[in-house]
Amino acid sequence: MLILGLDPSLSCTGWGVIRAEGSRLSHIANGQIATSAKAPMADRLALLHAGISKVIADHSPDRAACEEVFVNENPQSTLKLAQARGSVLAACGAAGLTVNEHAARLVKKAVVGTGGADKQQVAAMVKVLLPGVSLAGTDAADALAVAIADAHLGRAI
Amino acid sequence: MLILGLDPSLSCTGWGVIRAEGSRLSHIANGQIATSAKAPMADRLALLHAGISKVIADHSPDRAACEEVFVNENPQSTLKLAQARGSVLAACGAAGLTVNEHAARLVKKAVVGTGGADKQQVAAMVKVLLPGVSLAGTDAADALAVAIADAHLGRAI
Repeated sequence: MLILGLDPSLSCTGWGVIRAEGSRLSHIANGQIATSAKAPMADRLALLHAGISKVIADHSPDRAACEEVFVNENPQSTLKLAQARGSVLAACGAAGLTVNEHAARLVKKAVVGTGGADKQQVAAMVKVLLPGVSLAGTDAADALAVAIADAHLGRAI
Repeated sequence: MLILGLDPSLSCTGWGVIRAEGSRLSHIANGQIATSAKAPMADRLALLHAGISKVIADHSPDRAACEEVFVNENPQSTLKLAQARGSVLAACGAAGLTVNEHAARLVKKAVVGTGGADKQQVAAMVKVLLPGVSLAGTDAADALAVAIADAHLGRAI
């Protein structure tokens, strides 16, 4: 079972593919898709869509997972994040992938053991759980964390 | 000059294509893409992306336009709207379209003459401005209104 974890954001969307066989996990690939803040919004969203479509074509995951989205203190950031998420999830849907959604706290709890873990703790634990992994960055680490959590949890959106 | 107006929403995205020659406007086509609330989010977003991609392929507009998005009283509605918008704009970006963005009040003011117009007033005025148009629904009317406004206004996002 191959699981694609996603950490969508307009400026840099992280992704990571793991193999889950029972409780055994192994790393397949991870990466980040960055977009220029100077580019038009539609072009940035198209880049994310094309990038995730290529990841899916390259690795043929069985399902995908991402964190739940919510409106935070900064409405403009939320709107950018939600639009990036919409573009990324559309690519998953077009490929026929089921996308499971998990609360951020549950992802951290599943990976680090505590829902209040910071990005560094998540990245460190991803390295422990996926021995030999070379992380493309913290966004890719977050995406792998979502995939790891999804190997344990599971709920379709 | 062909302008594609868009009124993105997760449940039903309206679209409308007009021809603008100087101040003369004419209707080319309009429609709505509805998605089932029972379908998974990723599938609904993929349907919107594919639907708008087809509209663009069918009509080859020169540019697109949509209303500005903002966080309203209902955060969950805003998140759905923004994700739908992200999927729709990604389709525009993939086709190389510039997408202009206009404030909702400016669209209403450009079409009806007052920023506080309701949906019925907008639809009625769209029928006046585009003689002979047959509207697929109020979402398609809103999309045509955005295209009409864009024929006068213009700002890239």
